[in-house]
Amino acid sequence: MSTTMFRLKEIVARALEEDIGTGDITTESLADPERQASAEIIAKEPGVIAGLDVARLVFTTLDAAVEFTPTLADGDRAAAGQVVARVKGTARTILTGERVALNFLQRLSGIATATAAAVELLQYYPAKVMDTRKTTPGLRMLEKYAVRVAGGFNHRFGLYDSVLIKENHIKLAGSIKDAVAGVRRHVSPTSKIEVEVEALAQIPDALEAHVDIIMLDNFAAEDMRKAVQMIDGRAKVEASGGITQERLTEVAKAGVDYISMGSLTHSVKALDLSLELDT
Amino acid sequence: MSTTMFRLKEIVARALEEDIGTGDITTESLADPERQASAEIIAKEPGVIAGLDVARLVFTTLDAAVEFTPTLADGDRAAAGQVVARVKGTARTILTGERVALNFLQRLSGIATATAAAVELLQYYPAKVMDTRKTTPGLRMLEKYAVRVAGGFNHRFGLYDSVLIKENHIKLAGSIKDAVAGVRRHVSPTSKIEVEVEALAQIPDALEAHVDIIMLDNFAAEDMRKAVQMIDGRAKVEASGGITQERLTEVAKAGVDYISMGSLTHSVKALDLSLELDT
Amino acid sequence: MSTTMFRLKEIVARALEEDIGTGDITTESLADPERQASAEIIAKEPGVIAGLDVARLVFTTLDAAVEFTPTLADGDRAAAGQVVARVKGTARTILTGERVALNFLQRLSGIATATAAAVELLQYYPAKVMDTRKTTPGLRMLEKYAVRVAGGFNHRFGLYDSVLIKENHIKLAGSIKDAVAGVRRHVSPTSKIEVEVEALAQIPDALEAHVDIIMLDNFAAEDMRKAVQMIDGRAKVEASGGITQERLTEVAKAGVDYISMGSLTHSVKALDLSLELDT
Amino acid sequence: MSTTMFRLKEIVARALEEDIGTGDITTESLADPERQASAEIIAKEPGVIAGLDVARLVFTTLDAAVEFTPTLADGDRAAAGQVVARVKGTARTILTGERVALNFLQRLSGIATATAAAVELLQYYPAKVMDTRKTTPGLRMLEKYAVRVAGGFNHRFGLYDSVLIKENHIKLAGSIKDAVAGVRRHVSPTSKIEVEVEALAQIPDALEAHVDIIMLDNFAAEDMRKAVQMIDGRAKVEASGGITQERLTEVAKAGVDYISMGSLTHSVKALDLSLELDT
Amino acid sequence: MSTTMFRLKEIVARALEEDIGTGDITTESLADPERQASAEIIAKEPGVIAGLDVARLVFTTLDAAVEFTPTLADGDRAAAGQVVARVKGTARTILTGERVALNFLQRLSGIATATAAAVELLQYYPAKVMDTRKTTPGLRMLEKYAVRVAGGFNHRFGLYDSVLIKENHIKLAGSIKDAVAGVRRHVSPTSKIEVEVEALAQIPDALEAHVDIIMLDNFAAEDMRKAVQMIDGRAKVEASGGITQERLTEVAKAGVDYISMGSLTHSVKALDLSLELDT
Amino acid sequence: MSTTMFRLKEIVARALEEDIGTGDITTESLADPERQASAEIIAKEPGVIAGLDVARLVFTTLDAAVEFTPTLADGDRAAAGQVVARVKGTARTILTGERVALNFLQRLSGIATATAAAVELLQYYPAKVMDTRKTTPGLRMLEKYAVRVAGGFNHRFGLYDSVLIKENHIKLAGSIKDAVAGVRRHVSPTSKIEVEVEALAQIPDALEAHVDIIMLDNFAAEDMRKAVQMIDGRAKVEASGGITQERLTEVAKAGVDYISMGSLTHSVKALDLSLELDT
Repeated sequence: MSTTMFRLKEIVARALEEDIGTGDITTESLADPERQASAEIIAKEPGVIAGLDVARLVFTTLDAAVEFTPTLADGDRAAAGQVVARVKGTARTILTGERVALNFLQRLSGIATATAAAVELLQYYPAKVMDTRKTTPGLRMLEKYAVRVAGGFNHRFGLYDSVLIKENHIKLAGSIKDAVAGVRRHVSPTSKIEVEVEALAQIPDALEAHVDIIMLDNFAAEDMRKAVQMIDGRAKVEASGGITQERLTEVAKAGVDYISMGSLTHSVKALDLSLELDT
Repeated sequence: MSTTMFRLKEIVARALEEDIGTGDITTESLADPERQASAEIIAKEPGVIAGLDVARLVFTTLDAAVEFTPTLADGDRAAAGQVVARVKGTARTILTGERVALNFLQRLSGIATATAAAVELLQYYPAKVMDTRKTTPGLRMLEKYAVRVAGGFNHRFGLYDSVLIKENHIKLAGSIKDAVAGVRRHVSPTSKIEVEVEALAQIPDALEAHVDIIMLDNFAAEDMRKAVQMIDGRAKVEASGGITQERLTEVAKAGVDYISMGSLTHSVKALDLSLELDT
Repeated sequence: MSTTMFRLKEIVARALEEDIGTGDITTESLADPERQASAEIIAKEPGVIAGLDVARLVFTTLDAAVEFTPTLADGDRAAAGQVVARVKGTARTILTGERVALNFLQRLSGIATATAAAVELLQYYPAKVMDTRKTTPGLRMLEKYAVRVAGGFNHRFGLYDSVLIKENHIKLAGSIKDAVAGVRRHVSPTSKIEVEVEALAQIPDALEAHVDIIMLDNFAAEDMRKAVQMIDGRAKVEASGGITQERLTEVAKAGVDYISMGSLTHSVKALDLSLELDT
Repeated sequence: MSTTMFRLKEIVARALEEDIGTGDITTESLADPERQASAEIIAKEPGVIAGLDVARLVFTTLDAAVEFTPTLADGDRAAAGQVVARVKGTARTILTGERVALNFLQRLSGIATATAAAVELLQYYPAKVMDTRKTTPGLRMLEKYAVRVAGGFNHRFGLYDSVLIKENHIKLAGSIKDAVAGVRRHVSPTSKIEVEVEALAQIPDALEAHVDIIMLDNFAAEDMRKAVQMIDGRAKVEASGGITQERLTEVAKAGVDYISMGSLTHSVKALDLSLELDT
Repeated sequence: MSTTMFRLKEIVARALEEDIGTGDITTESLADPERQASAEIIAKEPGVIAGLDVARLVFTTLDAAVEFTPTLADGDRAAAGQVVARVKGTARTILTGERVALNFLQRLSGIATATAAAVELLQYYPAKVMDTRKTTPGLRMLEKYAVRVAGGFNHRFGLYDSVLIKENHIKLAGSIKDAVAGVRRHVSPTSKIEVEVEALAQIPDALEAHVDIIMLDNFAAEDMRKAVQMIDGRAKVEASGGITQERLTEVAKAGVDYISMGSLTHSVKALDLSLELDT
Repeated sequence: MSTTMFRLKEIVARALEEDIGTGDITTESLADPERQASAEIIAKEPGVIAGLDVARLVFTTLDAAVEFTPTLADGDRAAAGQVVARVKGTARTILTGERVALNFLQRLSGIATATAAAVELLQYYPAKVMDTRKTTPGLRMLEKYAVRVAGGFNHRFGLYDSVLIKENHIKLAGSIKDAVAGVRRHVSPTSKIEVEVEALAQIPDALEAHVDIIMLDNFAAEDMRKAVQMIDGRAKVEASGGITQERLTEVAKAGVDYISMGSLTHSVKALDLSLELDT
C-alpha cells in the first residue's frame, strides 16, 4: 500500500461526487440494491496500464464489499482485447462507478503508455526521461506516479520541493550568480538547485555558482553537445523544451543526463478501455 | 460573472495548493515582496482560447491586487504569437502563479480548439457536436464550459441530471420497455430519458417507450441513415462511439441531431501558451 | 445501498460535529467506554417513516460496531407506539448519537407523512405530487428522498439539472419565445424546458415554443381547467403556488399532470419519535 | 458584525453549492452578465423577521458588488405586504440567489415568529421561553439565533457546552447522586449541571446533589407547581416535554423559570416571503 | 471509545498529510509494500503518558491492519526506558507514521507530565489545577484531554461555552454590574458567568452581581487570602496569571478553589520518546 | 506577501473556529457591533518576534476592516514592554480575536527567540542551525518560517521533499549501499540524499555511495571531529540528536556544516505577550 493511499481517497471521493451528485438516477431506478453482478475491464488497444489501485478505490469507496481483481500490475503492458481487471459486487456499484474508474484508468494508462515509449527509445542511452509540472490541476500526484511506474523519473513535484531558477528569476536577480546566492541564503540545504540557461554563454556562470543541475532550454542538438562538453560532469544536465518522441534519440545522443517532456502529461491520449458486465 | 464563480474558487485553490505547497522557494528567495512586474500570455500556436476567468482567478487568489487584462474573450481564435492577456502585479505573484494559470488555460484552450474544429466541420449540417462524461476527474465543469464556449453542446453533467439507459441497464431490466417503465416510476418528470441502442432492431422498442433521445452506439454510417429514417422525428438521435474528426461529416450526413465525441475531453492536446515577463 | 451513501457521510458527520463538538461531557462522565446497551426507537404518533439509513449512519459513524436493526422500511407506515428500529452497541454511542439520529428521522418522517397524505388524496386522479426547491439548506437530497419514498415525485434538484423559465426570466428576455430560444442556444439537449405562466393568455406562446412542461402559477381552478384544454397534451402541465392539502383534489380535478407543493418541505411537522434505553 | 460571520460563510456556500451545482442554466442562458436589476423581498403574511444577514451573505457570496438593504432589522415585525429588504446588482446574481436567500429567511423568520408568539404569551410571567437541541442538522447556530433575536433564550448548543443528566444517564449511573458525582469528577467547573426528573420523588435527590437546574419532564401542571415549591429557589426550574403554545400560560403559572419548546425548531412553519424583480 | 473519535480523525489526517504530502520517498524506495515489521515506542525519560489513542490512529489511518498495543494507559507514569506501546504492521506503515505519532505523543505526554506534577503539589489542598485557552491552535481538544487525563480540570473550551468577563469587557460595559446584566439578557441560562477582577475593591460588585466564579488576576498571595475571605463561599474562586509550579502551594494555601496555569499548554517540554524497529 | 498566504488562511480559519465556535457569548453580549476600539500588543519580556502576518490575518479574517500596524518586523528583537503592533477596529473583533492572535504570535516568537539564541552562539563558526520534523502537528509551515526568520535554516519539510535514510531504513535495505541504490532507482533526481550514521565505521560506505549529506546521530564531540576529517568535504555534515544550547559551540567546533535541534520546535517556551485595549 502506498504511503499516500489516504490522500488518494480525497481525490477519488471528489471525482465520484462530481459524477454522481444527488444520485445515479438511471441505475437506482433499474437495479435492485441487492442484485449482484460481475464485470471485466478490457483494453481495446495495446498499452501500458497504470492506476489499478485508483480504479479499485473508486469501487470500494462506493461499497467496501466490492472485489476488484487486477490481472496485470501497474506498469505491465496490455494487449488489445486483454482483460485488465475483474470487478464483482452489486450491479449498482459496478454501473455507478464504471465511468469514474475508467476516466482515471484511461488517463493514467495513456501517460504510462507514452512514457514507456519514450523510455524504450532511450534504452541504449544513459539519458533518463523526466516529467514536468505541466500536469492536470488536481491530479499531479497520480500523473507523476504513472510516469514513474512506466520507467520514467519525476522532476520536482511543485514549487516547494526543489529550486529551479528560470530565465525570469535571473532577470529579477540580475545574474545567475546573484540568483544562486539569494537562494542559498534562504532555502533548505536539503534542496537541490537547478538553473535554466538559454545559451551556451550562460554555462560558465552556472558552473561557477556550483549548481546541482543545468537545464538547457530549447537548445539545438549541436549546442546540447557543446554544453555537455563544457559542463563535463560538474553538474547534471537536463534537456527541456518542446521535445517530442521524434527528437528523443537525437537529444539523447548529445549526452545529457535527463530529458524532460511536458507532453507526457499535458497532451495525453487516453488509452481505450471499457467495462463489460458479464451476462 | 458566471453563477459558478464561487465554485471555481475551490478548484483553483486546490491547484495552487498542489503546486505551491509550503512555498515557492525559488521565487521567495529572489524576488522582493514589493517588486512590481508585468507579463504577457502569448499563444505559441493558433487556437481557440478558453479559461481566461480561471487564469485570472489563479493570480487574484494569490493576490487580489493583480490586474489581469485579456485581449481576447473565451471562444475567440488566437493567432500564433498573439498576446492573449496581460498580467500586472508583484513579480512574486506572477511567477508563482504562472504554471498553474497556464496549466488551466492550455488544457481548456486545447479542448476549445478541438471543439471549434468539429463545429466548423459541421457548419453546413444540422447535427450538433456534444461532449461526454469522459472528462478529467475534478475538472468536468470547466471542460464542459470549454466545449460550450467553442460552439459545442453539453451532454448531461453527471449521473444525476438526466437518464441514459445503456446496454448494461437494459440487460438488468430485461428489456427497453421494462427499463423505461422502471425509470418513469422513479425519476423526476423534469429529466429527459435517453436510450442507447446497439442495433436497428432495438429502435422500435425505444420508440414505443416514448424516450426523448435515442443514442446509436457505434453504428456504421449506413445503419445510422436507416435509423434516422425509422425514428423519423419521434425522438432526437445521437450518434456516439469512437467518432473522430475524420468521420464527422460522414456521420452528419446520416441526419442525426447530435454527435458526441469523448476525445474532445479525454485526449486533449494542450494549446501551446507561454508567459513572458516584460523586461 | 444508495449510490449517494458516500455523500450522506458528509452530512451526517457535519451533524454529529455540530452536536458533539469537543465531546459529550455528560455521557463520557457517566458511562464506562465498554458498557453495552440496547434501545428502541419508537413512534409516539402514527406516520410514514423515512431516513432509517441516515439514522443508522449516525450511530455507525460514531462506532462501526453498532447494530441498527429497523423493523420497518422507509416508506412504511408506523402506528403510534410501534417500534421502528432497535439499536445495540455501547451505551456511550447510543446516548451520544440519539438526538442527531432522531433529528434526521423525525424531520424526514414528517415530510414522508405529509407526502403520503397528499398521494393518498390523489389516488383516484392521474395528477402526481411533486416537491419544490423550497427545502432546508444543506438537506435537499434527503428531503427529496423522503418525498420520493412516500410516493411523491421530485421536481428538479437545483438550478443546474433542468430549465425553469419563470416570470422574472421572461421579463429579462422580453418574451417567452425569446427566452426559450436563448435557452435552446445554450443548455444541454438532455435538459427539459419548463415555462411558468401567470395567465391563460401566455399559453399559446409557450406551446409555440415547444416547451416540455407548462407551470400554471397560482391559477384559479376554473382557469386550470381551461389551461389543460388549451394545452391538450402538447406539453405536460404542472399546477403550483400555495397549494394546500385542502385544495389538492380540486386542483387534481382540473386534469393537470403534476401538483407541486412547497409546504411538503418548507413547513414540516416533525414526526414524534423517541429512543428508549432497554433496562 | 457577529463573531461567527466567518462560520456562516461555510453554511451559505454549501447551500449555494447545493442549489447551483454546475450552474444556473436558465439564468445564464437568458441574462447578460452585465445586466443590472433590482428587487424587493416582501412579506406575504405578517411575522417576525430573522436572517437578514444570512440573506445578504447569499447574494454577496455570489457577487461582492450586490447591495442588500434591509428596511427592517432582525427581530422586527413585518406586516403582510411590507418590503423587508431591497436587493440591487446584476440580474444574474439576484435570480440565481433568490431561492437560497428565501429558503434561509423564510425558515428563520418562521422560527422567530413562533418564538415571539410564545414570548408574548409569557410577558406577564417570569418564565422564559427556551429552545432545545431538536434543530435541523447543520443549521443549529442559525436556528438558535432566530430564537434569541425574537426574545427567547437558548438552552445548551450541544452535548459539549453544558451537562444535562437525563433519565437514561441516571439509569447508567444508578442514581442521581452517583451521576452528579461522576460528572463533577470530570467536567469543567465552568459547566453548569442540570438534571431531568420524571417525578416529584426524584427532586430531593437532585437538590441534595446541588445541581444548577432541574428539568421537569412531562409533568402535569399540578405537579409542576408542587415541584416549584419543593425546590424553593435552590435550583432553577425548567419545564419541558411536548409543551405547545396552548399550554404555555398554564405552565408559566406553575412558577417555573424556563419553558423549553422543541416545536420552535423541529416543526417550523415557514414565513411566506417572495422576491419580486422591479420592472 | 471517546465520543470525539470521529473528530480526531480529521486532526490526524491533516497531520499525516502535512508530513507525507506526495509520498514518503525514502521508505517507498526501500521497503517492499508487503514486508512486515514490529517496533516499540520507548520512554527515554520518566513522565506521564497521554495520547495513545492518537498514536494508534496515526498508524491505523495509514493502514487499518496495523496492531497497536499499549502497555500503559493514558495517565499512567512511564519510567525511563519503559516500553509504552508496541506496533506491528508493514515496515512502510511503521516508518512512515513514526514521526507524526511521536509528535502527538511527545507533546501530549509533556502536557500530562507537567499537569501531574502540579496536581501532586496540590494533593493536600482543596485547590484544583486548571488549564486555559493558551493552547496550540488546532490542538486544543487534545491538549485539554491531556490535562484531564493527568488529573487536572479544564477551564472553558472556547469563547462559546462559558462566560468570562475580563477587564476589557468591564471597560466596555462601564461596570461589573452592567456587564453581568448585559450577559444575563443574552446568554443561555445553561452557561456559568465568571468575572475577572484586578483588585480586592472589585469583589463586592462581583458578589452583588451573583456571578458563579470570580477570577483573581495576578493577585499577591496576601490579597488572594483576603479575597477568599471576602467571597466566603458565595462564588467559586480562581487564581490566575503567571502561576508557576514554584508558586503553586503558596497560591493553594490562600484557599482558592481553582488555579489555572497557561504554561501547561503554551510552554510544553516534550516528553522524550522514540520508536525502535525490532531486528 | 508570501506565496503561501492563501494556505495560511485555512490554518487561521481553523484556529478561529476552534476558539469561537457558535459565538463569543461574552463579547457579543457586551459590545455594541459598531463600537470602535484600539489596542496594543506588548512584549512582556525580551525576545524575537515572528508571526505578525498571522496575527493580522486572525483579525482581518473576523473583519476585513481591521487595521493591524506592526511597529517591528518578523525577526526583529523586542525589548520588555515594547509595543509590537497596534490594532484598530470594532471592539468585538479585537476582543474576539485577541487570544487566537496571541496564541500564534507567542508560540512563533518563542521559536524565533530560541533560534536566534542558537544562531548567535554560532556566529563565529561556519555551522548553521537547522530545525527538524519534530514540529506541532498542523503548524509545521509556520514553525519552520519562525526558524528561518530568526536566522536558522530549514531541514526538509516532510517525507516527500528530500531523502533521509535513517538507521531503520538501512536495516530494511541491508546496507547503506543497497539503500542508496534503491533510492536512486526511484526518487526524483531533483531530491538530495542524506544518510544517518551511528558510528564512524559507517562513513566510508556513505562516501562510497556519493550521498549529499551525512548526518552524525548522537556522536560524541571527539567522534564528530574525526568524522569531519574522514568526510573531508566530500559530503555536507550534519550533527543531530539531543543537541542543547549548552552543547552548541562544542559541536560547532567539530567543524560540521549543520546542527539540527529538535527542541527549537518540540519544546517551545512561549514568548510572553499581551493585548491591551486603549482606554
